[in-house]
Amino acid sequence: MEKGCKNAVENAIRVVCLGETMLMFAPPRYELIERCDQFTAYSGGSESNVAIGLERLGIHAGWIGKLPGNALGRKVVNGIRAFGVDTSACIWTEHGRVGIFFVEWGAHPRPLKTIYDRAGSAASTLEAGDLDWDYIGRAEWLHLSGITPALSETCRQSTVQIAARARAAGCKLAFDLNYRSLLWPPDEARRALGRILPYANLLIATEMDAMMLLAQKVDQDRSSQREKNLETLFNTFSPDAAILTCGADGSVAYDGEQMVRARGYDLQVVNRLGAGDAFDAGLLYGYLTSGLQAGLDYGMAMATLKMTIPQNTPLIDRTDVERLLAGQGLDIVR
Amino acid sequence: MEKGCKNAVENAIRVVCLGETMLMFAPPRYELIERCDQFTAYSGGSESNVAIGLERLGIHAGWIGKLPGNALGRKVVNGIRAFGVDTSACIWTEHGRVGIFFVEWGAHPRPLKTIYDRAGSAASTLEAGDLDWDYIGRAEWLHLSGITPALSETCRQSTVQIAARARAAGCKLAFDLNYRSLLWPPDEARRALGRILPYANLLIATEMDAMMLLAQKVDQDRSSQREKNLETLFNTFSPDAAILTCGADGSVAYDGEQMVRARGYDLQVVNRLGAGDAFDAGLLYGYLTSGLQAGLDYGMAMATLKMTIPQNTPLIDRTDVERLLAGQGLDIVR
Amino acid sequence: MEKGCKNAVENAIRVVCLGETMLMFAPPRYELIERCDQFTAYSGGSESNVAIGLERLGIHAGWIGKLPGNALGRKVVNGIRAFGVDTSACIWTEHGRVGIFFVEWGAHPRPLKTIYDRAGSAASTLEAGDLDWDYIGRAEWLHLSGITPALSETCRQSTVQIAARARAAGCKLAFDLNYRSLLWPPDEARRALGRILPYANLLIATEMDAMMLLAQKVDQDRSSQREKNLETLFNTFSPDAAILTCGADGSVAYDGEQMVRARGYDLQVVNRLGAGDAFDAGLLYGYLTSGLQAGLDYGMAMATLKMTIPQNTPLIDRTDVERLLAGQGLDIVR
Amino acid sequence: MEKGCKNAVENAIRVVCLGETMLMFAPPRYELIERCDQFTAYSGGSESNVAIGLERLGIHAGWIGKLPGNALGRKVVNGIRAFGVDTSACIWTEHGRVGIFFVEWGAHPRPLKTIYDRAGSAASTLEAGDLDWDYIGRAEWLHLSGITPALSETCRQSTVQIAARARAAGCKLAFDLNYRSLLWPPDEARRALGRILPYANLLIATEMDAMMLLAQKVDQDRSSQREKNLETLFNTFSPDAAILTCGADGSVAYDGEQMVRARGYDLQVVNRLGAGDAFDAGLLYGYLTSGLQAGLDYGMAMATLKMTIPQNTPLIDRTDVERLLAGQGLDIVR
Amino acid sequence: MEKGCKNAVENAIRVVCLGETMLMFAPPRYELIERCDQFTAYSGGSESNVAIGLERLGIHAGWIGKLPGNALGRKVVNGIRAFGVDTSACIWTEHGRVGIFFVEWGAHPRPLKTIYDRAGSAASTLEAGDLDWDYIGRAEWLHLSGITPALSETCRQSTVQIAARARAAGCKLAFDLNYRSLLWPPDEARRALGRILPYANLLIATEMDAMMLLAQKVDQDRSSQREKNLETLFNTFSPDAAILTCGADGSVAYDGEQMVRARGYDLQVVNRLGAGDAFDAGLLYGYLTSGLQAGLDYGMAMATLKMTIPQNTPLIDRTDVERLLAGQGLDIVR
Amino acid sequence: MEKGCKNAVENAIRVVCLGETMLMFAPPRYELIERCDQFTAYSGGSESNVAIGLERLGIHAGWIGKLPGNALGRKVVNGIRAFGVDTSACIWTEHGRVGIFFVEWGAHPRPLKTIYDRAGSAASTLEAGDLDWDYIGRAEWLHLSGITPALSETCRQSTVQIAARARAAGCKLAFDLNYRSLLWPPDEARRALGRILPYANLLIATEMDAMMLLAQKVDQDRSSQREKNLETLFNTFSPDAAILTCGADGSVAYDGEQMVRARGYDLQVVNRLGAGDAFDAGLLYGYLTSGLQAGLDYGMAMATLKMTIPQNTPLIDRTDVERLLAGQGLDIVR
Repeated sequence: MEKGCKNAVENAIRVVCLGETMLMFAPPRYELIERCDQFTAYSGGSESNVAIGLERLGIHAGWIGKLPGNALGRKVVNGIRAFGVDTSACIWTEHGRVGIFFVEWGAHPRPLKTIYDRAGSAASTLEAGDLDWDYIGRAEWLHLSGITPALSETCRQSTVQIAARARAAGCKLAFDLNYRSLLWPPDEARRALGRILPYANLLIATEMDAMMLLAQKVDQDRSSQREKNLETLFNTFSPDAAILTCGADGSVAYDGEQMVRARGYDLQVVNRLGAGDAFDAGLLYGYLTSGLQAGLDYGMAMATLKMTIPQNTPLIDRTDVERLLAGQGLDIVR
Repeated sequence: MEKGCKNAVENAIRVVCLGETMLMFAPPRYELIERCDQFTAYSGGSESNVAIGLERLGIHAGWIGKLPGNALGRKVVNGIRAFGVDTSACIWTEHGRVGIFFVEWGAHPRPLKTIYDRAGSAASTLEAGDLDWDYIGRAEWLHLSGITPALSETCRQSTVQIAARARAAGCKLAFDLNYRSLLWPPDEARRALGRILPYANLLIATEMDAMMLLAQKVDQDRSSQREKNLETLFNTFSPDAAILTCGADGSVAYDGEQMVRARGYDLQVVNRLGAGDAFDAGLLYGYLTSGLQAGLDYGMAMATLKMTIPQNTPLIDRTDVERLLAGQGLDIVR
Repeated sequence: MEKGCKNAVENAIRVVCLGETMLMFAPPRYELIERCDQFTAYSGGSESNVAIGLERLGIHAGWIGKLPGNALGRKVVNGIRAFGVDTSACIWTEHGRVGIFFVEWGAHPRPLKTIYDRAGSAASTLEAGDLDWDYIGRAEWLHLSGITPALSETCRQSTVQIAARARAAGCKLAFDLNYRSLLWPPDEARRALGRILPYANLLIATEMDAMMLLAQKVDQDRSSQREKNLETLFNTFSPDAAILTCGADGSVAYDGEQMVRARGYDLQVVNRLGAGDAFDAGLLYGYLTSGLQAGLDYGMAMATLKMTIPQNTPLIDRTDVERLLAGQGLDIVR
Repeated sequence: MEKGCKNAVENAIRVVCLGETMLMFAPPRYELIERCDQFTAYSGGSESNVAIGLERLGIHAGWIGKLPGNALGRKVVNGIRAFGVDTSACIWTEHGRVGIFFVEWGAHPRPLKTIYDRAGSAASTLEAGDLDWDYIGRAEWLHLSGITPALSETCRQSTVQIAARARAAGCKLAFDLNYRSLLWPPDEARRALGRILPYANLLIATEMDAMMLLAQKVDQDRSSQREKNLETLFNTFSPDAAILTCGADGSVAYDGEQMVRARGYDLQVVNRLGAGDAFDAGLLYGYLTSGLQAGLDYGMAMATLKMTIPQNTPLIDRTDVERLLAGQGLDIVR
Repeated sequence: MEKGCKNAVENAIRVVCLGETMLMFAPPRYELIERCDQFTAYSGGSESNVAIGLERLGIHAGWIGKLPGNALGRKVVNGIRAFGVDTSACIWTEHGRVGIFFVEWGAHPRPLKTIYDRAGSAASTLEAGDLDWDYIGRAEWLHLSGITPALSETCRQSTVQIAARARAAGCKLAFDLNYRSLLWPPDEARRALGRILPYANLLIATEMDAMMLLAQKVDQDRSSQREKNLETLFNTFSPDAAILTCGADGSVAYDGEQMVRARGYDLQVVNRLGAGDAFDAGLLYGYLTSGLQAGLDYGMAMATLKMTIPQNTPLIDRTDVERLLAGQGLDIVR
Repeated sequence: MEKGCKNAVENAIRVVCLGETMLMFAPPRYELIERCDQFTAYSGGSESNVAIGLERLGIHAGWIGKLPGNALGRKVVNGIRAFGVDTSACIWTEHGRVGIFFVEWGAHPRPLKTIYDRAGSAASTLEAGDLDWDYIGRAEWLHLSGITPALSETCRQSTVQIAARARAAGCKLAFDLNYRSLLWPPDEARRALGRILPYANLLIATEMDAMMLLAQKVDQDRSSQREKNLETLFNTFSPDAAILTCGADGSVAYDGEQMVRARGYDLQVVNRLGAGDAFDAGLLYGYLTSGLQAGLDYGMAMATLKMTIPQNTPLIDRTDVERLLAGQGLDIVR
């Protein structure tokens, strides 16, 4: 029996992930939005990706979003609970739409392009009072990302309240910066995040997002600044640990005592979207079960395997994660 | 040489069609929006359908819409000018989105379902001042539909102004009621249309829409009321002619002197959407070239053939229209 | 908000459905297994179909099957829990395969054909001791079908024990005969079913299966025998009610006091497979919420709508069911 | 074991079919050549269809065509020998192209349309001297059609020579008129066919083609003339039997002594192309094994089942033919 | 607003491109023509590709071809005017076919393979007298390629006449050698091109084609000969400038005074076909707006981006061209 | 005329290949079995691949398998005889199923994964007495692989008997080790193969399989052991020649007198499955026509080209093989 099947028997929700899941429409690999008439619908939600990743690793997770009660809303929920995530605390509404975005995959040097069409989504109306706080209170962790406060003024307020209230209810908070430049400018982001981050137990950022938060210019030789920036982050917001992801260079974490590192892997990129979410899932799994080093290790393996998968969601086979961590390189199994 | 190729050599734009063209996304025949991940993008615009239908019959037409300057906007325009329609007077903007809607085809008794997602479209910000009035003034006819005033308060004002200004510039006006109950209630529609219809030279309505406009209850035996309603329409708004389409029962027109009729045809329905637009194109072609009877005849043939085509646009072969009008029934040509 | 979204907020499992779910592979409509290389995978399980149908109508259901712990087993479970069905009591094993079958859709007079390849499936090794009896005991109803005892000698024994033990635990039993002539001969079926049916509270059979059970010859004029057969069934096995489904002729039920009937509907058949399962879901929903007449009514509406859907599972919109029951015939909603 | 598998063990070639097989390109059902970019390649050859039909019924057949030695030529041959037909006598050449044609399926009243692009094909250069006469001489029957003499002046001569030489070598000749109005006018056809038909042992024609050959006007009430025309055909060309196919009305044959008839069947039409070829295969099978009545019976059953299949080739399951002839109407087998 | 939308408002045709556009049929990436039945239709025309490329960069262009008046001919024209190119001067005829070719993409070391099937195309009958010389005379530039004189003896004569007459009418001439070894041998090509090239203002050649024209052997170390060959070309035919494209090595141009160079770019090749045409479009755009250096720069950027696109036509986003020229390397925009 | 077409005229079967051919089902490139519903069916049989490879090179081959007489069995046979392989000696049975397996392609470092579902296949019941020994006796060579004795105890016995009886009938034996670790453990394999290999004239093994057979540990520096192992193999089983394939490192053979080597090629991998079978076909072709060096050369070229093809079968164009052997590197032919 493969390990990926074990999760079916665990019942308590340990991590609740909260945020908007959109529908993403993309033409086939290399094709142009302008020219192609065949679009594939994907699930596009950072926090639900984390929840699915946790399920794949055997940790039962819940996802909370706010959706209109129509076929598109049901489509979003079906795509998440199919992988075992509990969606019973979702908020259904008669107002607002399902946010959508279009992706054109590109081919170097033609970039992957995104057209967001998410204004007015039901998710952008989420308020702290919409939530089932008993449900959240029963979990050990709440996972949020920096996309939520960027959605609307309402969401900016809600996110602070949700973070505060969850901590008050005994939940720990994992927070991924996930800066989206098309949604808000750096100074607005800094202001809003500055009110949320003090509640975070785990603070996760890409190197670029960390520099945005610290209002730094991007430097040629950024590797030298990594650990300094990481320490600054840690000292500014005082989480239990701060984590910096550095793409192919791996990742590094600091918990006030030691710097922990994990390496990147060679891989064939199929779809980069969702790699950060897969990292978060691996990080939480490792951290919850074996500590920070395991967190980084599982995070890097999950992010790597995610990029070999066409979907944005980390539909990863746990056996593959462990084979990768054990350094076993098999190309064919038969 | 098939007749459908002749249009390539004609240059003057005789009819300008103005209105919103959206992108329509639909899963394959019978499939569910909620379950299926493969969507096909279609051009979805009543007035641009009319323009394409006119080109197929050999009348050069222009289409005017308002679109955001991105890949989705270009996609809309490409899909229209591919068939010879002039789109050089289109209005490009940096604000607003491309309106979209989702269609699930259904299978009796499961109905075809529509999810509109068109709020905030660039088209809903159209003002009369956006338009190139020299361009419109050079045409013989302007074609509008009752969808445009339903899009927004701005559009409601614009449509009246556009109708008035076009007539003042020497253009004749063809107007199809095209009532969309999901966009506005009957009384609002009646009020707004009441200000536009006096400018119409040709007034086209389905039987149901006419009853809405006349604030009538839908009766079991509506065929008896048809001609009475048509006369009322004619007398109320004084067009050159009023036309009622009655589905499989055919159509009937009144020009103050005589009642003209055309019959329906047996057919295999592939896609009903756009049948009314195809009728309008046939009506205009017939009316401009040979008078009202020819208008109804070509309108019915175009509507019939449109329903055998998977697209919403009337990509009809003129040879097929004439074969149908001549009563030739061939099932295979080889 | 459409009604189909309400189910997300209900938590207690009222009905547990138990049986094998296979993967079905079929080429596109009309294509031949022998000639076509593109196969679509479908979920193929009578009892899980019933569970999904119940979820669509707002009754929380669980499904129990026995599956090998590999990607194919996970595929089966994902396809069921995507629609809200609880699968946490599923049994995972290291032995046995996922049963598969191939379907070729046909076109009249070329019949739909099935190639079963289900021997040695994990499901065929199911024993009563494998089950989580606490889980079953918390439900109001258990749903079984006559396919399970046909799978293997082991299953023949298990089914009797499961029926008995569920009743003892306070569960009511719904049982659909679902006779599969390719799996066992009539006399074997009669012998085995004779030991199970006495436990049934609801006994559901097609007209043909009832005649098999009663060892009758199929007669030309079978409608005259319907009610007599139904009474015989009822009197032989003493359920709370016995139900006979008669295809396009509708259905009829008997509870010892009265004969209840529901009519069939005109429809466009897209896929007949799973119509009986959809009926069972509608029957249970109606019966649990409003009694036997409602059961038949919802059963017929669900079966009708199911046949308009490409999947075997009743992915029906509850709004469509109620529109059909209310006699509203809309072909397009826009 | 299904009967369709038995043919694999028979070795002697009883019927040789000779003629051009083209590649046919068609967009999906209902789509337009002008609008759609996805084309499916089909095997398009009347005589190779007959050969495949014979293999399906258990009679080993050979096919002879003339093809350029490139990937398209190999594609044609692969598509024929896949079903057991012997293609070892095919003629490969360095000159000429593979004939192609485009089909647009249509939907009533929009007709199925054909664009032939077969000029200059390798097949149009076939000469009697190209053939392996030992190979042909070992067969019992040669099957030709009226398409071959229509391909080119060369082919017109070759066909007469081939017919004569085959008869001289002891082969019987089956000839299907298969008149193609897009390839040659009636008077040319009459002249050329007049030189070939005297060699035919079996002469097969549609009712329409027979009227063309007899230079008759198409009459409203043609059923009254059927038998008279059939007799005229028989008396003019003196075959062993003449056969008239009358679409849904069935078919009728005359052997100088008696009129034999077979009825048509209700069916769902998937693809009409190749129905006549399927008839020929059934006719030859029945005639060779049990006489003229069996010929018509198998011919009608094969033609009916062919029309339920997406390909032009009669990929029919022999079990289905016999079930149909036995009057067994099953819609689902499971 | 993206820059690619601006072209819609420009009206005067500055460049007319003339040549054959065929339909290209190709199976999916890696698949074999011989084995695969799914073909995608592409637009295949060097000169129409240039016209589309010019439109993408904001220069209004016209395309002239000669086509049969059927669905395939319309398909060709639709595929070109969809992107804004004016096709009103196209020549429609009742004779000849649409040229087609088949492409199998290959995978190293299995080469991309082409099967031409273009003999007898309508385009091969083009005569100078067919053209609308007023239309051509209104343009600043005419673009021709060396494919046209290779099509037929008629075309060989026509091309010289067209070049001469266009220059006499005040048009400048851009000419791309585009040598096709499958259409004619080098000595024939040299003879015919020798009569055309003296009319060229811009003469464009790949390094290999230039060596063919100069009757040189291909040398191992060809980079040393580049500039010498370029000078020879320039001195022999006296254009305003001669341009040599050298694949990944970039391109070089000579105008009698200076050697101008542009570098190549790293890229992921999706489809190499049409890269030269994209270069020509970029060259013309740059040359017309800013001179020879800009011509080479835009040419290289356009050729590079073209190869990342599945179509043969340069459906390039002008923003991408300018980002590439500015050295901005973004892989994801979100 | 391309060389690949010549094989159609050769009639005598020189090589008979015997073994199981399964149906393989795989989702598209990169997709997951668990997530994707679209599966493509491939022919999956090592020995039939060899037969097809021989046909592509011009050597007529036969294939013998044992299959159930249903649509799946016919599908297997059609897929083999389409390429000219003689399948007339196939064994049809009413018992057993067609073996199937599922493949998920993977993307580095996510491995290609296989789920075998072949237990109980008709092929696993093959006995020596099932075979047509006249048919085998007329061939020069019999090709077997180490998969057959791994299928069942019956097959383990049959393979020894078949090898012995073929040699006794005058056939030479080519045997490819083809060790499948999912089917049997090394010691069982060694025991069984030890009884078969003494009959082999050509013994082919991958480096890894040879080490398994020789019960060696896999060493870091295995290249040093290659020739020693090869000699050991040769000396142990005394074939005419023993051949070791070493992936990208090429291959090496020993015939008791000399070591012969062939190099590998750079390539773009599309599908690795079947590369060994393609090697065997090339080896046999080269060995039969020109000796051992030609065998290795053709083997490496065939294996290389196979990996550029999506199918498992070596549908290779002989022209490509010879171009590769001649060192001609063309990327585009037009």
